[in-house]
Amino acid sequence: MKLYDGGRAPNPRRVRIFFAEKGVPLPELVPVDMASKEHKTADFTKLNPAQRLPVLELDDGTALAETIAICRYVEALHPQPSLFGSDAKQGAMIEMWNRRIELGLFSSVSAVFRHSHPAMAELEDQVPEWAEANREQLDDHLWLLELQLAGNEFVCGPALTVADITAGIAIDFMKPAKLPLPEDFVQIRRWHAALSARPSWKA
Amino acid sequence: MKLYDGGRAPNPRRVRIFFAEKGVPLPELVPVDMASKEHKTADFTKLNPAQRLPVLELDDGTALAETIAICRYVEALHPQPSLFGSDAKQGAMIEMWNRRIELGLFSSVSAVFRHSHPAMAELEDQVPEWAEANREQLDDHLWLLELQLAGNEFVCGPALTVADITAGIAIDFMKPAKLPLPEDFVQIRRWHAALSARPSWKA
Repeated sequence: MKLYDGGRAPNPRRVRIFFAEKGVPLPELVPVDMASKEHKTADFTKLNPAQRLPVLELDDGTALAETIAICRYVEALHPQPSLFGSDAKQGAMIEMWNRRIELGLFSSVSAVFRHSHPAMAELEDQVPEWAEANREQLDDHLWLLELQLAGNEFVCGPALTVADITAGIAIDFMKPAKLPLPEDFVQIRRWHAALSARPSWKA
Repeated sequence: MKLYDGGRAPNPRRVRIFFAEKGVPLPELVPVDMASKEHKTADFTKLNPAQRLPVLELDDGTALAETIAICRYVEALHPQPSLFGSDAKQGAMIEMWNRRIELGLFSSVSAVFRHSHPAMAELEDQVPEWAEANREQLDDHLWLLELQLAGNEFVCGPALTVADITAGIAIDFMKPAKLPLPEDFVQIRRWHAALSARPSWKA
């Protein structure tokens, strides 16, 4: 297997952290430089027509894209420790929270970064009004996470799951998006400090 | 179990079609009228703080939100016919395609509808520039699907999966979003006609 990797970008990091939390060694890494648009070349487009990173190339040549699809594949090959849940209800609740965070907080932070950061002007047709609309929604997304963490050590209970990786990466991504985390989010701060101290978080 | 349902909206339909394709009878339906903002009331917000439909209430009172989380729960209780794949690689490829369509075509069509349709002005802080940006991306998303369907009867091969439900609903949603499907998309037209003729599609 080979992992086409995108360095510090959030989705490549999510996958590398997932491997680390599973205790599965990373496959051979193939760095793809997004700043020089290597993910838009004809060769890369053949591998992933959606032109996104990361991509896991399986030994039979199959190109598997989409962060969560790659994580689920790793989980299926190495079930323990389970990061997607081990029964129907737990699995569904983890899927729910992972999606809530992805489609809410993570998506809004990404929108602010992609549509307002000067470094992204080259790669995106920026819509500043969309960055602004997402900036205004940020507090609602943060409160949803804050309230959930008030009753739980991790997003879905006493153990780390894929939803924590998604949420932690979203909080990390606020820094390059120039979005400060207000002091009132004490549960998020407590939980994020614990995540950041895990060895996996250096991945 | 109870299913809090939102009528003709795309995500409630995805879940009802999923039940029908699984051959699982729908639970008791509780209609929630989004036009009169019933999904924004205090009671509904207690059930789903993200204020979205549908929500499956389990017999123990757990509220399970997010379309795909509900579908996965149904799949876990009733594995056959499998709509999420039955081995690691097939499951990952279906997850990849479902996400590609959700985050690409479905998300763009939704953005056009939500940010340009006059009926949505009451429910959304509309950003017309975002509707326009998504309208411009539509052809790219459609080509990704067209090329995949050129070699496959359904999105992921010879059998219908959850990715077909997501993609078919996205194509249906183009009508209220006032986005015509150009004649050149012959594979999409062939596949969508076959989907629309299935009994499940009336759900």
